[in-house]
Amino acid sequence: MNRFMQLAYEEAMRGMNAGAGGPFGAVIVREGEVIATAHNSVLRTNDPTMHAEIAAIRAASAKLGRFDLSDCELYATCQPCPMCQGAIQWARLKKVYYGASAEDAAQGGFDDAAFHANPPTMEAVDSDEMRGLFSLWLQKPDRQGY
Amino acid sequence: MNRFMQLAYEEAMRGMNAGAGGPFGAVIVREGEVIATAHNSVLRTNDPTMHAEIAAIRAASAKLGRFDLSDCELYATCQPCPMCQGAIQWARLKKVYYGASAEDAAQGGFDDAAFHANPPTMEAVDSDEMRGLFSLWLQKPDRQGY
Repeated sequence: MNRFMQLAYEEAMRGMNAGAGGPFGAVIVREGEVIATAHNSVLRTNDPTMHAEIAAIRAASAKLGRFDLSDCELYATCQPCPMCQGAIQWARLKKVYYGASAEDAAQGGFDDAAFHANPPTMEAVDSDEMRGLFSLWLQKPDRQGY
Repeated sequence: MNRFMQLAYEEAMRGMNAGAGGPFGAVIVREGEVIATAHNSVLRTNDPTMHAEIAAIRAASAKLGRFDLSDCELYATCQPCPMCQGAIQWARLKKVYYGASAEDAAQGGFDDAAFHANPPTMEAVDSDEMRGLFSLWLQKPDRQGY
């Protein structure tokens, strides 16, 4: 087994056995060095965003002191869900290794396809006023792009 | 202006003026009561996941002591990005009000369409072993679905 995937597996087992959340683990590696390991902790933390991948990205960013993880790789025990895929791209991770597929997860009781089949109602309100925030942003001389 | 959207706007202004991150604010409301307000703090926290919506969801879950926010509504100054849309659905929010559109954000320098046009490489590794985690999960008598 790939040694980083092995670590991700052990994280998943640790989280599952502790009742932290589902059987998911993730590891972030930079130049062959482990920067962060994490497991799903949605149940323990009561935080719906605490998937293993997000937790690992947050830990790695905290450790490296930057939100840009473009020099890192992610190992995840399962194919990332749409939320985590988004986080991976905002973190600028360029390479993701994953173990089980989304279909495997669905059979295990974690079906994000079914979950996302019933999206919330979205309604636009006060769009002109809110659009104005971007005009103010673009006038800031010290703004940082990201 | 809708009073909750006004609060989201004020949060966006607060975050932008403090240099916390981009001009984005979010508010979570339950039965007419504000449960959480948050702004983007990607720059201040060095955390790429700290979009206003995610920060508001985390704060609301912490306050209510549960990851299920299906009795809450979200107000966001801008249309949520794919990561935040995923978080919204995992939090089971049923209604989202947003101000500016994704196109407005793109013109303001926040183009998640362009960003997501260059996804990371994904590669399956050790799939059989990782799939085994779900078998272990399904054998847990005390497992909680979520």
